Amino acid sequence: MKRLNFFNIQESLNAIILTMPILVQKFGGTSVQDAVCIKRVAKIATDAQKAGYQVVVVVSAMGDTTDNLIDLARDVTSKPDPREYDLLLSTGEQISIPLVAMAIHFLGARAISQTGLQVGIMTEDRHGKARITEIKTSKLKKYLSEENIVVVAGFQGISESTGEITTLGRGGSDTTAVALAVALGAERCDIYTDVEGVFTTDPVIVKDASRLKTISYEEMLELASLGAGVLHPRSVEIAKNYNMPMRVRSSFKPQDDGTLVKGVKEMELNNPVSGVALDESQARIAIVGVPDKPGIAAKVFESLAKKNISVDMIVQSTSKDGINEIAFTVDKETIDDATKVTKEIAKDIGATGVTAETNIAKVSIVGAGMIGRPGIAAAMFKALADSSVNIQMISTSEIKVSCVIEAKDGDKAVKAIHKVFELDKLNKEKQKI
Amino acid sequence: MKRLNFFNIQESLNAIILTMPILVQKFGGTSVQDAVCIKRVAKIATDAQKAGYQVVVVVSAMGDTTDNLIDLARDVTSKPDPREYDLLLSTGEQISIPLVAMAIHFLGARAISQTGLQVGIMTEDRHGKARITEIKTSKLKKYLSEENIVVVAGFQGISESTGEITTLGRGGSDTTAVALAVALGAERCDIYTDVEGVFTTDPVIVKDASRLKTISYEEMLELASLGAGVLHPRSVEIAKNYNMPMRVRSSFKPQDDGTLVKGVKEMELNNPVSGVALDESQARIAIVGVPDKPGIAAKVFESLAKKNISVDMIVQSTSKDGINEIAFTVDKETIDDATKVTKEIAKDIGATGVTAETNIAKVSIVGAGMIGRPGIAAAMFKALADSSVNIQMISTSEIKVSCVIEAKDGDKAVKAIHKVFELDKLNKEKQKI
Repeated sequence: MKRLNFFNIQESLNAIILTMPILVQKFGGTSVQDAVCIKRVAKIATDAQKAGYQVVVVVSAMGDTTDNLIDLARDVTSKPDPREYDLLLSTGEQISIPLVAMAIHFLGARAISQTGLQVGIMTEDRHGKARITEIKTSKLKKYLSEENIVVVAGFQGISESTGEITTLGRGGSDTTAVALAVALGAERCDIYTDVEGVFTTDPVIVKDASRLKTISYEEMLELASLGAGVLHPRSVEIAKNYNMPMRVRSSFKPQDDGTLVKGVKEMELNNPVSGVALDESQARIAIVGVPDKPGIAAKVFESLAKKNISVDMIVQSTSKDGINEIAFTVDKETIDDATKVTKEIAKDIGATGVTAETNIAKVSIVGAGMIGRPGIAAAMFKALADSSVNIQMISTSEIKVSCVIEAKDGDKAVKAIHKVFELDKLNKEKQKI
Repeated sequence: MKRLNFFNIQESLNAIILTMPILVQKFGGTSVQDAVCIKRVAKIATDAQKAGYQVVVVVSAMGDTTDNLIDLARDVTSKPDPREYDLLLSTGEQISIPLVAMAIHFLGARAISQTGLQVGIMTEDRHGKARITEIKTSKLKKYLSEENIVVVAGFQGISESTGEITTLGRGGSDTTAVALAVALGAERCDIYTDVEGVFTTDPVIVKDASRLKTISYEEMLELASLGAGVLHPRSVEIAKNYNMPMRVRSSFKPQDDGTLVKGVKEMELNNPVSGVALDESQARIAIVGVPDKPGIAAKVFESLAKKNISVDMIVQSTSKDGINEIAFTVDKETIDDATKVTKEIAKDIGATGVTAETNIAKVSIVGAGMIGRPGIAAAMFKALADSSVNIQMISTSEIKVSCVIEAKDGDKAVKAIHKVFELDKLNKEKQKI
């Protein structure tokens, strides 16, 4: 008979630890903005450990730290070298991580902090917005097996080719967290933020906005790109590709479940529409009197792309006499450049004129449940018409309908649409808010 | 005949660069406290490069950064883990170095910043006050050969055994600079600070205090340990061991030569005394009525060492009746602990009592020139007596005489001593202030 000795016990314990599920928790800048917040983070992490998880915590820079670092660089030079800039910005998270580790120690648990470089978060050699190419997990797994909560710096990595410190761009800490969760085979990635989850619309506009219990990756991506940016789109993309569940929740109310972001297949699609978003950051340009020849749209948008101007909605209308209109929206910030480029092209192609309009808003509905359900777009248009809101442009995708309207009508439009789809009642009976 | 081709030219250029002398310039926290100061540093470094040097710049954390980081940690925990604490503190210098590199770029010169980890500043595995064990020079030499000014983070390194980030303790940036100068075979190490050099005494006390043109390592060490701390003692020790010339100068007046610190052999010893220092940080403890038995002093100071209490001056006096007094000085901050320990021992050894006195000051003269010149100490005592300053303790070394006096007499004592040794006239004719 095999005798139980100390080593067997130790091995058994290790085996238990190794089979314990891994949870990645990400905390944004407002969640670590001061000592009180940092202690709250430590409590959430140790609670998860007590609940049986191996815990990896990913943190952003404290509060305004990154902005302050940017200001410092601006005071020195208008064109900072990208390598030096990344080295500077990466200090923000490097300040947060030891503080969180210390706060966890203070609660009597084990913790070790790790910079992107120390973990081995490998990225492209592209300063300022590098993409993660690989995450080394051996050190992380070792620390986890030693019952450490591992506190990892978000937003940063090292270039695979040069070994230099890189950053992932604004919002990159979400990406770090999801990529880590995927690399470690985590059960879930929780994104703690200063809101209680994803809402059917902006609660500032509509008081009755409901917190969504679940949302699909696809819907979340549409909402993120619509400016309802609770999550960084790149992080949702990665989660979607690897089917990694994410939970958006509040670090100030950790007992709440927040919103679970998961695959559309796993969801019951009770509601055709999950949310209404308002985007006031865009402007509209229209080329009128465009001759009906092939290749004109390509010419317009190639020229804009060359000037690094991003175009969002594009609508082309054809009239019977062969004179078309091409309208599109761009970021308000780029409207002057965009108008200039467009006017040059309009002349080239023999169009009759160009109009630019900054006084617009884009209202959108998003919902994976609208697939295969006719009449959703029509219901939206009717709600707008009933509220005397004039629609200037319409653009649709499989799970989204967007309308460009006058800026002054924005709030009115959101309220009307939110009401017509009864979003205030969404998940009400199931939710525990 | 050998033909001159491009590669030969390149090799020749490299050879020229490699034979250009190396200069290490260190800038303290006040010298990089804001964008204006950082630009001044960049100017000093590029000027040195233009003057024909390969330049390595070592910088401290900006202004109050380190203190702010310490406060952050204190808000979280009273006992920070040393590893996490070092990771936190090391961000201070990591903020300064890219900013200095950017400022150099702005002036049109090449520069690259390097953390202690990136350079390979290897240290002991001892967080908070690690000693440098080795500096890797291959990367530095490569960057220098590419005409870069290399901007290195002071105060930090990595543990040779664990690969973790370590710090060298307060003032460690001076040590980084001198160690780098030694490792690279630099011509000199310039320490830029907010004072114009080393003075014969504190110019706040004595208006006529002269800037010393030169000072020996030994004198500098005595002055540093006396609290006239322009330079960190460890850096002077390393410079002394490797005979590396150091220059203390002002980053606000870079055209001034400051004070050259070099080997005593290379100096003309015109003056017996180089400087007068006042140290008001100490307190005095005396054990009275100590029986004349062997081993008592050892017992006293072993007990204090065990409590981590540093003792500076020690004076033991023996009277004819076999009853002695042992007096010593400790940091004012440790006086309560020290008194407690001393009282316990006094009881053990059968001494009659213990007195503690915080109201003292230590005035000292330092001078390599006093070796072999009798009467220097006597002249000091006479100066004090003529000013009615009572001497409580005396301690001497080869190049130093220290007297403990009443705190209220401090300034008066310094002025009297400065005058008797004519330090206001020191180097006057040679100096260009």
